[in-house]
Amino acid sequence: MAIEGSSDTFAGRIRLGMVGGGRDAFIGAVHRIASRIDDHYELVAGCFSSTPEKSRASGADLGVAEDRVYADFVEMAEKEAARDDGIEAVAIVTPNHVHLGPAKAFLEKGIHVVCDKPLTATLEDARALHKIATDADALFVLTHNYTGYPMIRQARDMAQSGVLGDIRVVQVEYPQDWLAEPLEGTGQKQADWRTDPARSGAGGSTGDIGTHAYNLARFVTGLKLDALAADLQSFVPGRRVDDNAHVMLRFEGGARGTLWCSQVAVGYDNRLRLRVFGSKGSVEWLQEEPNTLWYGPIGEPVRRMTRGGAGVGEAGLRGSRIPPGHPEGYLEGFANIYSEAAEAIRAKRDGVAIDPAVTYPTIDDGLEGVAFVDACVRSSSDDAAWVKLDI
Amino acid sequence: MAIEGSSDTFAGRIRLGMVGGGRDAFIGAVHRIASRIDDHYELVAGCFSSTPEKSRASGADLGVAEDRVYADFVEMAEKEAARDDGIEAVAIVTPNHVHLGPAKAFLEKGIHVVCDKPLTATLEDARALHKIATDADALFVLTHNYTGYPMIRQARDMAQSGVLGDIRVVQVEYPQDWLAEPLEGTGQKQADWRTDPARSGAGGSTGDIGTHAYNLARFVTGLKLDALAADLQSFVPGRRVDDNAHVMLRFEGGARGTLWCSQVAVGYDNRLRLRVFGSKGSVEWLQEEPNTLWYGPIGEPVRRMTRGGAGVGEAGLRGSRIPPGHPEGYLEGFANIYSEAAEAIRAKRDGVAIDPAVTYPTIDDGLEGVAFVDACVRSSSDDAAWVKLDI
Amino acid sequence: MAIEGSSDTFAGRIRLGMVGGGRDAFIGAVHRIASRIDDHYELVAGCFSSTPEKSRASGADLGVAEDRVYADFVEMAEKEAARDDGIEAVAIVTPNHVHLGPAKAFLEKGIHVVCDKPLTATLEDARALHKIATDADALFVLTHNYTGYPMIRQARDMAQSGVLGDIRVVQVEYPQDWLAEPLEGTGQKQADWRTDPARSGAGGSTGDIGTHAYNLARFVTGLKLDALAADLQSFVPGRRVDDNAHVMLRFEGGARGTLWCSQVAVGYDNRLRLRVFGSKGSVEWLQEEPNTLWYGPIGEPVRRMTRGGAGVGEAGLRGSRIPPGHPEGYLEGFANIYSEAAEAIRAKRDGVAIDPAVTYPTIDDGLEGVAFVDACVRSSSDDAAWVKLDI
Amino acid sequence: MAIEGSSDTFAGRIRLGMVGGGRDAFIGAVHRIASRIDDHYELVAGCFSSTPEKSRASGADLGVAEDRVYADFVEMAEKEAARDDGIEAVAIVTPNHVHLGPAKAFLEKGIHVVCDKPLTATLEDARALHKIATDADALFVLTHNYTGYPMIRQARDMAQSGVLGDIRVVQVEYPQDWLAEPLEGTGQKQADWRTDPARSGAGGSTGDIGTHAYNLARFVTGLKLDALAADLQSFVPGRRVDDNAHVMLRFEGGARGTLWCSQVAVGYDNRLRLRVFGSKGSVEWLQEEPNTLWYGPIGEPVRRMTRGGAGVGEAGLRGSRIPPGHPEGYLEGFANIYSEAAEAIRAKRDGVAIDPAVTYPTIDDGLEGVAFVDACVRSSSDDAAWVKLDI
Repeated sequence: MAIEGSSDTFAGRIRLGMVGGGRDAFIGAVHRIASRIDDHYELVAGCFSSTPEKSRASGADLGVAEDRVYADFVEMAEKEAARDDGIEAVAIVTPNHVHLGPAKAFLEKGIHVVCDKPLTATLEDARALHKIATDADALFVLTHNYTGYPMIRQARDMAQSGVLGDIRVVQVEYPQDWLAEPLEGTGQKQADWRTDPARSGAGGSTGDIGTHAYNLARFVTGLKLDALAADLQSFVPGRRVDDNAHVMLRFEGGARGTLWCSQVAVGYDNRLRLRVFGSKGSVEWLQEEPNTLWYGPIGEPVRRMTRGGAGVGEAGLRGSRIPPGHPEGYLEGFANIYSEAAEAIRAKRDGVAIDPAVTYPTIDDGLEGVAFVDACVRSSSDDAAWVKLDI
Repeated sequence: MAIEGSSDTFAGRIRLGMVGGGRDAFIGAVHRIASRIDDHYELVAGCFSSTPEKSRASGADLGVAEDRVYADFVEMAEKEAARDDGIEAVAIVTPNHVHLGPAKAFLEKGIHVVCDKPLTATLEDARALHKIATDADALFVLTHNYTGYPMIRQARDMAQSGVLGDIRVVQVEYPQDWLAEPLEGTGQKQADWRTDPARSGAGGSTGDIGTHAYNLARFVTGLKLDALAADLQSFVPGRRVDDNAHVMLRFEGGARGTLWCSQVAVGYDNRLRLRVFGSKGSVEWLQEEPNTLWYGPIGEPVRRMTRGGAGVGEAGLRGSRIPPGHPEGYLEGFANIYSEAAEAIRAKRDGVAIDPAVTYPTIDDGLEGVAFVDACVRSSSDDAAWVKLDI
Repeated sequence: MAIEGSSDTFAGRIRLGMVGGGRDAFIGAVHRIASRIDDHYELVAGCFSSTPEKSRASGADLGVAEDRVYADFVEMAEKEAARDDGIEAVAIVTPNHVHLGPAKAFLEKGIHVVCDKPLTATLEDARALHKIATDADALFVLTHNYTGYPMIRQARDMAQSGVLGDIRVVQVEYPQDWLAEPLEGTGQKQADWRTDPARSGAGGSTGDIGTHAYNLARFVTGLKLDALAADLQSFVPGRRVDDNAHVMLRFEGGARGTLWCSQVAVGYDNRLRLRVFGSKGSVEWLQEEPNTLWYGPIGEPVRRMTRGGAGVGEAGLRGSRIPPGHPEGYLEGFANIYSEAAEAIRAKRDGVAIDPAVTYPTIDDGLEGVAFVDACVRSSSDDAAWVKLDI
Repeated sequence: MAIEGSSDTFAGRIRLGMVGGGRDAFIGAVHRIASRIDDHYELVAGCFSSTPEKSRASGADLGVAEDRVYADFVEMAEKEAARDDGIEAVAIVTPNHVHLGPAKAFLEKGIHVVCDKPLTATLEDARALHKIATDADALFVLTHNYTGYPMIRQARDMAQSGVLGDIRVVQVEYPQDWLAEPLEGTGQKQADWRTDPARSGAGGSTGDIGTHAYNLARFVTGLKLDALAADLQSFVPGRRVDDNAHVMLRFEGGARGTLWCSQVAVGYDNRLRLRVFGSKGSVEWLQEEPNTLWYGPIGEPVRRMTRGGAGVGEAGLRGSRIPPGHPEGYLEGFANIYSEAAEAIRAKRDGVAIDPAVTYPTIDDGLEGVAFVDACVRSSSDDAAWVKLDI
């Protein structure tokens, strides 16, 4: 209740296109809502499916003008680039193996890309896209959306500014249970492609959620990985990718950790949890209650910090819309990535430097995520030997 | 993760105006975000302030065309009603004493009204507005936004369908702490008007948050109030309205309850909590963790139901956008009111019946809320005697 | 793990007798365990039932010598007083209407009394016992056992030493669900006598658990009651005493509060909760997680204080046996009352002053508790009028 | 409140001695309280220290007759064995490296042993003691006390009776923070011996708390370990043993898990947590809130089971003294081990079979625990290679 004044000052809407996200999709709708929340974008074009009629139907669903609905993303990139009112940015929300193609097409036309994670299905593709994005005259934003939560920003600030002292132990886990049974046999499309190595990549749970967990640990601590040792399992009979993984982590500088991701953890929805222990204090955060950050200063009682509340600094206040105690959630965190992307896009348009507070995940994070999956698979094949990321 | 398909099918945007919500406002931004989330509205006009230059500046902030920014809501109603592309609905987000005027102006022009709560600052105004709204050929929607939370819908369904048995006890509380010190002396505008009887009404905490708590109890249980006994306090020296209230409730049919609202409950942000106990089971819900509903069937362990998760029925799934475990929050709950309003506006436009599942708070709830505040004040003045609502 | 050294220094066992607590009893076993935990007592005599064979059987169960098992508490008081090795203290754990008789018998023989709550079934009896105990040359200890929890002692210290500032609001509740159905018809002996006005007193839930809640609020805050307004219900058909009560409280000095007790709150076991809000801070404590005290200093994050942990002062450390994080529970809290009684008994024996840190509930608390029940019943009969305690 | 009848039927006290547990000790007092709670033991002899005057002083503290206080446990074993009223059982509560000697001395005299964990400081000693105990005509009870918690018994029953389906994943962790700083330099005796390899063994956190975590996972699931891979750290400068450990677990039959133990996890007291995920359901238990067991049946909401409450079976009710909602804690769980030991001692005395429900940890668990520490150290020395227990 302590917040005064409008936080939604309007700076003109960025023209946005979308690749994927048609009627069968899950994450497309999330991207669209996220793009709308702070009013920085307007969806004006899309290639919602590679089947023309499906793309058209989805375009109609979404109020996109018929002549800007495409069935081919290359065509879309060309035509939109040629229009005066063509899209300035595109959201790529296709399955993992269809990230590289569209990203390349749009980046090469100078159109900014907001891409879902993991970056690609293979490390080879990831390397290729990394080069393209690095060379391109357009921004590349990866939606590791959990980094957008305000209390994750607060945790990051505390970890990296020394409040926690020397970081010793990092515990991160992302358990779900939606694949505890062989859902992929039932026609559920999310399960189908996410357990298909050709579309999802060699990692199952490691790619889908392990990359989120890994990215979050890296984002908050800033520590670089030295090596990992992974033990991957496929518990559900017939499953072609891992559905559970235990990973031991060694960071440069001496910190150690473990990462657990699972899609067979019955009783858990999306229980991503990060805990960082330093010599002077600790922080603990749970995605299912994201407005709270537990801070344990050594020798003092643990403190329940709340989004927007007492003790939260500038980093944590950024991306907060409403007073403490009024929960913001997943969509708002996701929207923060989109809003930071908008800030960067405008800065680039205006030829000014991007505010250093803008910290959305980039193509580097994307490549590292795919390298993380690759390393997990390699290590697990070698009886959980220590391996380094192959970047 | 189990949700497939787009939930954001586009049905054309409703042209929306706003009264209030300029640069100094808090709730205006909330209404704007809520209206955008599901893409049912487009803000195209506004009277953001009664000071012309302030209104203009705010309009510019928000991307509203200059010729549709007004400093007088009567003028706005007239001019917008006269346009072919005039607004279809208006959000009224001014302080309580400035609800009646705009609502009257727009309703009389057949423009639908979405109005913040409490309905008005006085019972007299509430009665007047009730008559106007009832007679009008336009819809009136009151943003008791907590009713929009999916797990509140689930609780309501369980309470009213008999799952809980005969309801015996209702405990509702809304403690905050933002007014624990005399903030109204410091230039904080929210504190200023919310503690000013002339603008806020005779009730302080009772009007600002007690009405929410009362409405939520009524919405979930469906029980009608027989009488209440209230003991109101103003703890902060110099405060002109109540900042804490204890209210005992007697419902028709024999259920009893208590309501506590406080703005001096140090340590609490917006800890609205509702508990309903019946002869066969209970439900418990906390606004700060709104994706969870605790259900206690008699003789069995308490169950943690989650938004979109196992055991949630149609009523609870309505207004849910993303999978369980990915928290939706205050803004999404608020958006559900706006989206149901859109559904009703379109049904009215199309001359079809409104889906009975649409359950946004109405003018009746608004009148009852102001009568609740009035009854609290009357009872407390009479040493907490039992009084009935004066409706 | 930070605790060093034995906390159980042995000072010789006090010879203890018991009245009540035979085979059908619940609370007798609790008293016996509580008396043993810190090794201050030895049970050597008892009148476990007024039926001789039942008393004998229970005595045998408990290892009490046959010649010290009685069926008549008057006889027991006389014979034990006459022995050189007679009991020094007696625990009275009979139903409420059989507290006065034994207490009188033993006190008049100079034998210290540890008595279960509420003090008596009627206010008349309570007054009589108060006079007897006040005049006696023996101690009277009332087992409002929740006052023995270390974090309640910590809360008390914070409330009374000014850490919380001026106390404004007190919220206390004690909901259970074990009487949500008409258990008293089924032969369950606890339900039988606790819902029988002749044995339990005029209050049902108010006497059984409301007195605990009231006492706890008084104990922690130190505030004296000015008046209360109570609305009592008997929800279960055929029930002869209240099974739910809503009570508004006015304390001397201006603090206000509410008390809710219920035995029909489906889903709750023994969810006694106390919240105290002052001008500078608040504390919150829940009996079901008694090792935690939530402390909310104004303008700072809420702190999770733990028994024996950082920030806990001398008052809170007293009565703590093991390191933080190793939960102590109900029996240890109860044992703290017994251990403080032992300390007082030894001081009296040695003719020295009792340590002022000893704060077990006394005959005054007992009389006030019965007066509280009486006031609730009187107020409720008079439509929840404000009444004062009749002490 | 639903519990009727005395649960503390007296069967005569077992004469108990103690080795260790003098004035500087921590765990000795815990054993003494645990032995008293259910009135099955009487402490009548002790060798509380190897320094005669210290032993005498401690004996006096504890009310032990002077002639039964010893400074030499061999002498104690001989003299007590020679007395008609000699001890029947002895509690060994010395540092780890002084378990073998006393255990041998008493077992060889036919005196039952209750011994603290880990079994010994070295695997060699553990093997020797295992042989002695297996051959002895006396019982050997190891106080892995967490197995005594009623809700752990309930979890075990659910895991082993098939309620959870095939067990897939086991997550166990035991983080503390009391050694986050170099406490061993400060004269704190607990820190001194627990970080001294000569007294504690090669494992630090692995021996002190890792063995508890490992034992708990084994006790609940019944799964046998196939291999483990461990990464051990000593974060605090100068520390001679591990203070943090990450261990990956492979169980026979295909289940996998991780174990994390830490004594540098700032913000945590004794946060032992066990989670077991099967194909049909999961359980989760936290030592700091031990009266709750979270049960997640697949496809249904998670249930909050409480000690003594609805849905708890015979295994879970065993060792429960008081009604649900009245918390029992660490000491009661510990007492359950002592009470089961008493039951077994009496059965042995009477020449009858021990009730199969008696499930206290045995010499086998002791040997396995030391082998677990040994395996962790070996694996970690070999760069976290997979190793088997050397039993």
